[in-house]
Amino acid sequence: MPRTEFTRHPERQLRDRPALDALLDGALVGHVGLVADGFPVVIPTGIGRDGDDLLAHGSTASRWMRLLADGAPASVAVTSLDGLVVARSAFESSMHYRSAVLFGSFRALTDPAEKEHALDIITDSLLPGRVAEVRRPTGKELAATLVLTLPIVQWSLKVSADWPDDPDEDVEGPAWAGVVPLRRTATAPLPAPDLRAGISLPPSVQHLVMPAP
Amino acid sequence: MPRTEFTRHPERQLRDRPALDALLDGALVGHVGLVADGFPVVIPTGIGRDGDDLLAHGSTASRWMRLLADGAPASVAVTSLDGLVVARSAFESSMHYRSAVLFGSFRALTDPAEKEHALDIITDSLLPGRVAEVRRPTGKELAATLVLTLPIVQWSLKVSADWPDDPDEDVEGPAWAGVVPLRRTATAPLPAPDLRAGISLPPSVQHLVMPAP
Repeated sequence: MPRTEFTRHPERQLRDRPALDALLDGALVGHVGLVADGFPVVIPTGIGRDGDDLLAHGSTASRWMRLLADGAPASVAVTSLDGLVVARSAFESSMHYRSAVLFGSFRALTDPAEKEHALDIITDSLLPGRVAEVRRPTGKELAATLVLTLPIVQWSLKVSADWPDDPDEDVEGPAWAGVVPLRRTATAPLPAPDLRAGISLPPSVQHLVMPAP
Repeated sequence: MPRTEFTRHPERQLRDRPALDALLDGALVGHVGLVADGFPVVIPTGIGRDGDDLLAHGSTASRWMRLLADGAPASVAVTSLDGLVVARSAFESSMHYRSAVLFGSFRALTDPAEKEHALDIITDSLLPGRVAEVRRPTGKELAATLVLTLPIVQWSLKVSADWPDDPDEDVEGPAWAGVVPLRRTATAPLPAPDLRAGISLPPSVQHLVMPAP
């Protein structure tokens, strides 16, 4: 199996499971790598977390999702860009990020109740509170959805959160240095053209757009 | 070589090179997949674009970057999450995204002038205008940086930008539907603790935090 130990910047590598969970829970997508016909393929997919399992979902019509469902070895990268590190030189400039890579093999959930539970988690992961606002999935919908689960066992987490580390001669120079935090924000919701009159914005969307202070 | 034709939702697949370039130019990172010891590995890396080449950079000390530099087959996913599609059911809920996957083999730039040019592009891609504000890289810095280039030849682009597509019975139901746009925003810059007095915020950071109206 591939190594999960980083050979560089070992001080950035954490075995901090709560920090991993926070990253996985806050991410909307992961990038799943697999080998198809000997070549690497990377696909973005919506993710969620159910305790010690990473969940991913897709369509049963996707060839790559089917390869994953059949147990093809996978690598999943989940990345959060948290800021720009603006150093006094291009060389020292970098990013604040949290980056997890998980390794293992997915399996497809087959039990309808398990699938439904997992899809609820993924739905609420994308938009917290949404599950309570929509109807339950139909049997046909469950059948058309592939839900994959990967045990969170082999993983690494790297966090970069430091100030610029410029050499003295640059610190004494004229260039500014600091960090510019980045975040994902939601802007004003756009009602669907076929939205019927009198249906107001649900709590899930309200909370997303105007987070609690 | 892997297929770049999507078997699902062919209407979402574009052969629109300007749209691909806009996605690559606006992205801060790409997720690079490779095969190491038979297993897939996905690593996030800063990217840029120089005309018909995708640029990636990393450290010469990274094992995976060295594999890529040696021409290992690669797949690069570049993804922009542009919104949440809040449908009337969990099943129809999805995301607005632009998703590119490129295939090919990187090569490492060796000519110092070529490397310097590519690093300028990557630096200005992360923070437009920054190159003009910092000193030139030293020979030692250039030597310690691995700059990889991949011809933009084999690629696919998928764009999801539609309204929720709910069946009639759901449209007639009580649930709200619409799209919540997402974007990446910069918040107030944090000066480095060792920033000398009297150095004001540079134009690059000012523009990032307060984009032109």
